[in-house]
Amino acid sequence: MNSFGRIFRISIFGESHGESVGIVIDGCPAGLSLTEEDLLPDLERRKGGKQKGTTPRQEADYPIFTSGLFNGKTTGFPITILFENNNTRSEDYQKQRSIPRPGHADWVAHQKFGGHEDYRGGGHFSARLTTGLVAAGAIAKKIMAGISIHAAVTEIAGENDLEKGLQKAIDAKDSVGGVVECRVNGLPVGLGEPYFDSLESSLAHILFAIPAVRGVEFGTGFAAAKMFGSEHNDAIESMEGKTRTNHAGGIVGGISNGNELVFRIAIKPTSSTPRQQNSLNWDTGKTEDFSVKGRHDLCVALRAPVIVEAATAVTLVDFLLLEQHIKRVLS
Amino acid sequence: MNSFGRIFRISIFGESHGESVGIVIDGCPAGLSLTEEDLLPDLERRKGGKQKGTTPRQEADYPIFTSGLFNGKTTGFPITILFENNNTRSEDYQKQRSIPRPGHADWVAHQKFGGHEDYRGGGHFSARLTTGLVAAGAIAKKIMAGISIHAAVTEIAGENDLEKGLQKAIDAKDSVGGVVECRVNGLPVGLGEPYFDSLESSLAHILFAIPAVRGVEFGTGFAAAKMFGSEHNDAIESMEGKTRTNHAGGIVGGISNGNELVFRIAIKPTSSTPRQQNSLNWDTGKTEDFSVKGRHDLCVALRAPVIVEAATAVTLVDFLLLEQHIKRVLS
Amino acid sequence: MNSFGRIFRISIFGESHGESVGIVIDGCPAGLSLTEEDLLPDLERRKGGKQKGTTPRQEADYPIFTSGLFNGKTTGFPITILFENNNTRSEDYQKQRSIPRPGHADWVAHQKFGGHEDYRGGGHFSARLTTGLVAAGAIAKKIMAGISIHAAVTEIAGENDLEKGLQKAIDAKDSVGGVVECRVNGLPVGLGEPYFDSLESSLAHILFAIPAVRGVEFGTGFAAAKMFGSEHNDAIESMEGKTRTNHAGGIVGGISNGNELVFRIAIKPTSSTPRQQNSLNWDTGKTEDFSVKGRHDLCVALRAPVIVEAATAVTLVDFLLLEQHIKRVLS
Amino acid sequence: MNSFGRIFRISIFGESHGESVGIVIDGCPAGLSLTEEDLLPDLERRKGGKQKGTTPRQEADYPIFTSGLFNGKTTGFPITILFENNNTRSEDYQKQRSIPRPGHADWVAHQKFGGHEDYRGGGHFSARLTTGLVAAGAIAKKIMAGISIHAAVTEIAGENDLEKGLQKAIDAKDSVGGVVECRVNGLPVGLGEPYFDSLESSLAHILFAIPAVRGVEFGTGFAAAKMFGSEHNDAIESMEGKTRTNHAGGIVGGISNGNELVFRIAIKPTSSTPRQQNSLNWDTGKTEDFSVKGRHDLCVALRAPVIVEAATAVTLVDFLLLEQHIKRVLS
Repeated sequence: MNSFGRIFRISIFGESHGESVGIVIDGCPAGLSLTEEDLLPDLERRKGGKQKGTTPRQEADYPIFTSGLFNGKTTGFPITILFENNNTRSEDYQKQRSIPRPGHADWVAHQKFGGHEDYRGGGHFSARLTTGLVAAGAIAKKIMAGISIHAAVTEIAGENDLEKGLQKAIDAKDSVGGVVECRVNGLPVGLGEPYFDSLESSLAHILFAIPAVRGVEFGTGFAAAKMFGSEHNDAIESMEGKTRTNHAGGIVGGISNGNELVFRIAIKPTSSTPRQQNSLNWDTGKTEDFSVKGRHDLCVALRAPVIVEAATAVTLVDFLLLEQHIKRVLS
Repeated sequence: MNSFGRIFRISIFGESHGESVGIVIDGCPAGLSLTEEDLLPDLERRKGGKQKGTTPRQEADYPIFTSGLFNGKTTGFPITILFENNNTRSEDYQKQRSIPRPGHADWVAHQKFGGHEDYRGGGHFSARLTTGLVAAGAIAKKIMAGISIHAAVTEIAGENDLEKGLQKAIDAKDSVGGVVECRVNGLPVGLGEPYFDSLESSLAHILFAIPAVRGVEFGTGFAAAKMFGSEHNDAIESMEGKTRTNHAGGIVGGISNGNELVFRIAIKPTSSTPRQQNSLNWDTGKTEDFSVKGRHDLCVALRAPVIVEAATAVTLVDFLLLEQHIKRVLS
Repeated sequence: MNSFGRIFRISIFGESHGESVGIVIDGCPAGLSLTEEDLLPDLERRKGGKQKGTTPRQEADYPIFTSGLFNGKTTGFPITILFENNNTRSEDYQKQRSIPRPGHADWVAHQKFGGHEDYRGGGHFSARLTTGLVAAGAIAKKIMAGISIHAAVTEIAGENDLEKGLQKAIDAKDSVGGVVECRVNGLPVGLGEPYFDSLESSLAHILFAIPAVRGVEFGTGFAAAKMFGSEHNDAIESMEGKTRTNHAGGIVGGISNGNELVFRIAIKPTSSTPRQQNSLNWDTGKTEDFSVKGRHDLCVALRAPVIVEAATAVTLVDFLLLEQHIKRVLS
Repeated sequence: MNSFGRIFRISIFGESHGESVGIVIDGCPAGLSLTEEDLLPDLERRKGGKQKGTTPRQEADYPIFTSGLFNGKTTGFPITILFENNNTRSEDYQKQRSIPRPGHADWVAHQKFGGHEDYRGGGHFSARLTTGLVAAGAIAKKIMAGISIHAAVTEIAGENDLEKGLQKAIDAKDSVGGVVECRVNGLPVGLGEPYFDSLESSLAHILFAIPAVRGVEFGTGFAAAKMFGSEHNDAIESMEGKTRTNHAGGIVGGISNGNELVFRIAIKPTSSTPRQQNSLNWDTGKTEDFSVKGRHDLCVALRAPVIVEAATAVTLVDFLLLEQHIKRVLS
């Protein structure tokens, strides 16, 4: 299913080179003031072509609301948002069709969907689909006023100095990966539950839905595996639950503990590298050298923070509604 | 919700020191031969007290089927399995109740459930609840004959030599964390879908439901963030999708590609360390020194592999049923 | 799936002549005082053997809580309730196995589950499974204090005089059907939504899950099809939404309007009639005359009211929680 | 939620007088040939203005596919279909806003959504939303080739002679209700399960989502309540499960038995009657006489059959996919 959430439920649709991509948001509280302009800053952050290392393909990415708004406010019914695909160069993909691109879904999609998938620009697998997610995230952020979500790239190509990491890619004429860290402040205690509805489970679920994500860790994450218990435990210092350290990243027993929520995601290097590659040619049944055409990001991690924030926001709003911290009709 | 899965759906229940813990498995195909003995090997692996570094608490952990079986076979209706809690020492927990244990859910559970939670032995948060999951996993493994799942501890306290890592804990009189790696062979191509039903999303969802898990990574995981694209991409070598390398860990675009599925999870050190700690006393509102009583594992990671296998198995069976690789009535 | 509900979610399990039947209730608010005694009055109403026309089979039907309670209150975690099956006479069913009983699920179950179904006493199809539902209903009623639910048989064998209807059955040595009407008072305005989560949709979903239900109608129901619009419309008379008439049965546009909720269900005559029947013998492939053995109700409708109330209560609690009329932690 | 289905999942959106209405269909098998023309016959049947007694409002109702199709076939990803709202006369609704229309959702919507609902033309409650459902139904029918679904009006205003029933409405200058019967042939044995996923539960769920439906009955339905068991039971006559009679309407124990599926729904008279009514005026707090303006159907039942067929088709396709009678990739 292409849906996520129990109370605040999003459903994405569309293909990279199809008519449009978009999202349906069901369960958004009624009475939220909402205009296209509210979404533009985050949509702008998601766009490529704005910074060194991102794809020169630029879409207007202007959101078209087709349902769920009335007199400038949400009605409580599904909000549908479309983004038209204007700037597509499908011929790039047509040409190289005989070689399923390594790191891309070309081969698995072909097997799974019997050759019926829309392969142009990655079709439904394209990161273009995250446009709708970012729009939903911007709405979610508006709903949860008072809670701040901030994600940023903290590492590129193994470098904490991001300029340096990017230069590595440019020098090597290759794509590179990166790490994104997200911090959320202002969360109430009590979101999430032990086991299958844990806050980590829900966040990881949607974070791993973001293309190119290879790892998710909360708090100290993988470093925790190297620590002693007495070192890792966060001593509680106040009746409000403030802890001395925050190795847990704000979640204990699957439940938010009121401290800062902290997690990191690992993003692999863009699969479409400018370097020559060697892989299978479907038509000949043999491997051969080839180069991927099209316009691509050297480092997709650079565009990820706003997507990570959006994924986080929609997940948290869902829990906030479930736990009745947010009313289903806003005043 | 304490449930997971769409077609093969598990629901866990119980508290560590309550009457019993258990699981309901809905959607198990009819016609599977099943006896208590089928579950015992995995249940045995989950038990503490069997190896250095695990809790001396030993439950019989004998599964009691109360529904879903007839003439030694599954009927297609919900299978209920109970495990009685015989070996509990609640007084240990009663005594130290005034200090919510750091790293444990004591404090958040109290806030979230208004003091109504069963705090004895961690209640519903206890890893004892994974008994049911392991039982479900053993059943799932039986259904997916021909697919092998193998998880193992690859690192303790930062050491790949496990004996050495454990000795570190014993020497320091402290608990330690570890890393578990899981490998699955024999999976068909095509499990999972882009975005919210990706194979990584679904696996991460349930893996983060296992107590003490702090991170999940697929294939090269966090190391991918440091790689070049040309280096990370797995070249396809055969018409069957065999890749030269397997940095992707067997999943591309959220879909299994027929290569070995590989992922790792980071497990934090056991929260109940033998070392003295300093944390809040609820009754006084001040922090104080204290020691956790009760019988605990020095390294919970040691007991995790069979739980990780179980979580993996139930997730994969769900996809295998959804994708019609397994029939709902076995012959 | 054998589950129902989004926030207050019930999962039933068990077979008529298996070890036990039971239910898991997930999402029950924490802090509700609850003892076995709270469930007994409704369980007593469900039992046969208490009134003319019901089966002489009597189970103790004493609820065994195995999880979710602590110190006499709900913890917010899954509540599991078991009912042991003590009073079974499986040999009755064994004998007549060669003739799939008309009106029963014997034939379809055999086809669907490949012969693996537990056929004894109807197995999982048995109305014995409603024991768990009635228990969940009693809990739901406790949660929604202030809202009254009352169901009653209004017609037996076409007679509004119930004694007369039952006498018809006794005279004809045959089973008979009936109609049950349910009325709910005290509901807030606003439960339900247009389309797929309408109050009627949700109620009908669970009402048709009750064995032997053949029809469900709200308000004027099928009679509405014969009315004029000016006659059927309920004029609103007060700012609180009180209507002059209540043909809508308390639901407009899928949403409760604060007036009395009224619906009726049609219950077919018990399939196990004492009369001789003629149907297929599986072993011979030919039809033959036979009589159903076992202990059965002449009119199952007589036992239905408490089941209908339970189904209604669990559905309404789910909506009340979703709409935040009930807190997830009770004080 | 505005969604329905587990494998074949539909999500509707839109408001009667908003930009557009539409539907997202997730889980449609890949490889189905599909063009706009495939949907037109059913969309045409749904339209008003074609027959005596239906609204003169006519929309082009031309489906616009914005995702999920490639080279004239479904891709296996979400199909989005939009219908633009061109022919709206919102001023009709603006004028009579002070009187919440009896039988309509005006009053409850206002209470539930805090006045934020789009009230024009009934907003999201409008039967215009069924356009998307009919489109999904047409697709579902194409998938389940070999299974025939036929719904028809069998009664208007209490008359089986439909012309006569309609004349009653015209003579009385009033709206009238009706009964629709649906018959499905060619269903395999085994769709549905006892209890919450029974075929009746699932069908009733979506049937009661259709505006104006007041009752649903299967087979003999409410008449069954007046019958004897020996009379009602359908004797099985062949090894294929053919029954002598079909009082069960093709479902036993919640499961299809391979005989004709038969059910009926009761549809109330159109709430917007041409007759003068007396109801509350919100502004004055008093009741007053008024007349509903706008273009409406005298008998909505006339437009219902194709909607009932669509609701039935999407439900059955979901079960057929779940039971693996239909492949997720069509050849």
